Amino acid sequence: MPESGLDVLGIGNAIVDILSHAEETFLVERGLAKGAMTLVDGAQAESLYRLMGPGVESSGGSAANTAAGVASFGGRAGFIGKVGSDQFGHLFQHDIRSVGVRFDGATAPSGSPTARCLVLVTPDAQRTMLTHLGASVELGPADVDESLVASAKIVYLEGYLWDPPNAKLAFLKAAKVAHGAGCKVALSLSDPFCVERHRAEFLELVRDHVDILFANDREICSLFQLERFEDAVAATRALGKLAVLTRSEKGSVVLTDSVAHEVPAAPVGRIVDTTGAGDLYAAGFLYGYTQGRGLPECGRLASLAAAEVIGHFGARPQGSLAGLVPADLRSPSLPPISSL
Amino acid sequence: MPESGLDVLGIGNAIVDILSHAEETFLVERGLAKGAMTLVDGAQAESLYRLMGPGVESSGGSAANTAAGVASFGGRAGFIGKVGSDQFGHLFQHDIRSVGVRFDGATAPSGSPTARCLVLVTPDAQRTMLTHLGASVELGPADVDESLVASAKIVYLEGYLWDPPNAKLAFLKAAKVAHGAGCKVALSLSDPFCVERHRAEFLELVRDHVDILFANDREICSLFQLERFEDAVAATRALGKLAVLTRSEKGSVVLTDSVAHEVPAAPVGRIVDTTGAGDLYAAGFLYGYTQGRGLPECGRLASLAAAEVIGHFGARPQGSLAGLVPADLRSPSLPPISSL
Repeated sequence: MPESGLDVLGIGNAIVDILSHAEETFLVERGLAKGAMTLVDGAQAESLYRLMGPGVESSGGSAANTAAGVASFGGRAGFIGKVGSDQFGHLFQHDIRSVGVRFDGATAPSGSPTARCLVLVTPDAQRTMLTHLGASVELGPADVDESLVASAKIVYLEGYLWDPPNAKLAFLKAAKVAHGAGCKVALSLSDPFCVERHRAEFLELVRDHVDILFANDREICSLFQLERFEDAVAATRALGKLAVLTRSEKGSVVLTDSVAHEVPAAPVGRIVDTTGAGDLYAAGFLYGYTQGRGLPECGRLASLAAAEVIGHFGARPQGSLAGLVPADLRSPSLPPISSL
Repeated sequence: MPESGLDVLGIGNAIVDILSHAEETFLVERGLAKGAMTLVDGAQAESLYRLMGPGVESSGGSAANTAAGVASFGGRAGFIGKVGSDQFGHLFQHDIRSVGVRFDGATAPSGSPTARCLVLVTPDAQRTMLTHLGASVELGPADVDESLVASAKIVYLEGYLWDPPNAKLAFLKAAKVAHGAGCKVALSLSDPFCVERHRAEFLELVRDHVDILFANDREICSLFQLERFEDAVAATRALGKLAVLTRSEKGSVVLTDSVAHEVPAAPVGRIVDTTGAGDLYAAGFLYGYTQGRGLPECGRLASLAAAEVIGHFGARPQGSLAGLVPADLRSPSLPPISSL
């Protein structure tokens, strides 16, 4: 991998989030699956948007949030995803580039609108997401720049990409190119309902194409159709992969077939909005990993990044994550700012 | 005034805010006037936007924020302003209607884009604003619905409206219709630089057309070209109007020619972003005033609303302001929810 390459290349849906506060009853009355991401068509999105409270818009998308987090730590990050030729597309491109993520800004040829995700934040800080994929579904293998993939240490894919059919092909191409070039492939399972939709394919995918797996407790239990987290941990270790399983305030476990590290959650003042917690956890972990840190240190960086993002509204860091890295975890391999 | 009418009708620029964190040096290097609102053309807005960090978009506009605040307290509020036929225009309309503000959603016939305001929030929580007025400048007298104005107890005008020439005519028409119908006219001076641009006209306007004046210490000193706040207070009282002068953490003073009430600022945990502080102060004051509260109580409600909005990113309340009203200030004239 050349020094000009990337630490992490994220591939995912390019989405603008519209965040709004909502009461529990709003979800119940509309039969919305709390804490999950549900796909909706344009008409459903429009109808829900009309019922929603006042919103705040900010760039989102799972793998895009992770890429932004890696860049915020000071890592070299890139992103591949498809936006529409509209104001939301401009916002998405602006936001991701302005934190230093390489994004070539492919737009959908069809004129489809940029994907949007209606994020309903309940008083307990949980987020319930309704996504209209719009231009995102037009991501296809042609959008996967082989030399960019080959330049990355890690290609990070979001499970949500398995929903749009062309993106799945893009995903498989990226994995193949990455392995051909000696890069690692990481996957986030994204959401328990996403796992339900694609369980058999995900199991095959993890076995055949993935080196590093990210999942939370509900997702990993769903993948193996097991009730107890402990059993899912055992099933995960049997895969022989590096796996990182998160459990909200209970912290996380980092697993291989031979080792298991428990990582506590980092303290957070007030939990405002859990949107992006998993994405930023992955960002911290992958930043540490690509800097050559040991697994427990990767876990610590992951917890720090997740704690930052749940302390405020929105799915991307509000300040520089590099400033949050404790002195003993600052990378000696990076040149000091003054010599850049 | 019929019971079906409005408590407060705001008339102002319909703007979407793009908020971003910025360092002091970013302002200094570009010669940006810290804490003020500067008008920029489309090209300048585009060029600054490219340099800005990742943003969060939310509906703004001074009088629109005030209308949203009045509605959030449970008051009946309306807004008149002009948006473009674009995504930002839809956002603005959605957000203001979703808090219960009546907005008929006039769009600019020229196809101009919705106004946007780049808000740079420095680490001291001060905001520096660069506004491209876009469709807002096309607000004119024809947009002022006379029966809507006549139905309101108070018509609230933002000083920023004095910048676009047609809006000025709309402003004067609204004041004339309001007084003809026995409504009061309130004005916010908006910004010390706005006062500088229009000082002579503002003085004449206040004397001839305004019943309630809102200003902060810098604005009122600029209006009278006086150095000392105490001297500006004396000059204000000589006008013989109801005037409310705010001084950030020093609280505010509510003045007539015969009385002066000092109002302390309400406590706030951490000041995150001062955008909207003056707008929400006015919202609390006018909500109390239209509920028949005494001037010191109006001031208390004003301080509470301002404290809420500076505790988070963005210029509109995040939750319902009605919930913040202390028991002794809850209006006995409002029917309980269950009887509505």
